[in-house]
Amino acid sequence: MLLAEISGNVNVIGYGIAALGPGIGVGLVFAAYIQATARQPESAGLTRVYMFMGFAVVEALALLGLVLAFALQGGS
Amino acid sequence: MLLAEISGNVNVIGYGIAALGPGIGVGLVFAAYIQATARQPESAGLTRVYMFMGFAVVEALALLGLVLAFALQGGS
Amino acid sequence: MLLAEISGNVNVIGYGIAALGPGIGVGLVFAAYIQATARQPESAGLTRVYMFMGFAVVEALALLGLVLAFALQGGS
Repeated sequence: MLLAEISGNVNVIGYGIAALGPGIGVGLVFAAYIQATARQPESAGLTRVYMFMGFAVVEALALLGLVLAFALQGGS
Repeated sequence: MLLAEISGNVNVIGYGIAALGPGIGVGLVFAAYIQATARQPESAGLTRVYMFMGFAVVEALALLGLVLAFALQGGS
Repeated sequence: MLLAEISGNVNVIGYGIAALGPGIGVGLVFAAYIQATARQPESAGLTRVYMFMGFAVVEALALLGLVLAFALQGGS
């Protein structure tokens, strides 16, 4: 008897959710930089470093999820 | 009888959800700092400490989820 | 009989959801304080106590989830 023909790995679901928040967060950081730079072009150099810093730390959360999906292989 | 051919570790799902909120929250903090610094560059030094404080406490929530995913290995 | 080759602990999922809201909430609190301080620097001392109060009560929700994940170990 075959109840359901589902295969796959739930780790992919986990990474998918881990990419959801940082996907929005990195977008917020870049959106703020774009709007701030358009309004005060002379501030572009001052805030650029914080844009890259914010991008890096938020993106890292998603990449940690990618690493974790490989590290915690279930079952065996 | 094989009900479903699913493998993996639900801890990855747990970390994924734990990274969702902080991913948005850290993005909000950096976005606020970028916009505030562009509008009032003289406030950059005053608010920088709060940006890092906010970043640290929000990021910690996601990293606690990462620790918990390794700490609570189920089953065995 | 092998139902599914999934391992892990659903408590991690629970903590993840518990960290979702506070991750956004603490980010909102710090973002508001950064923008308010940049616009009215003389209000920084007046609103600082409320920033820390808001941060503490929101962060506590996530830490309660962390405690609960260790307190309610299932099964064994």
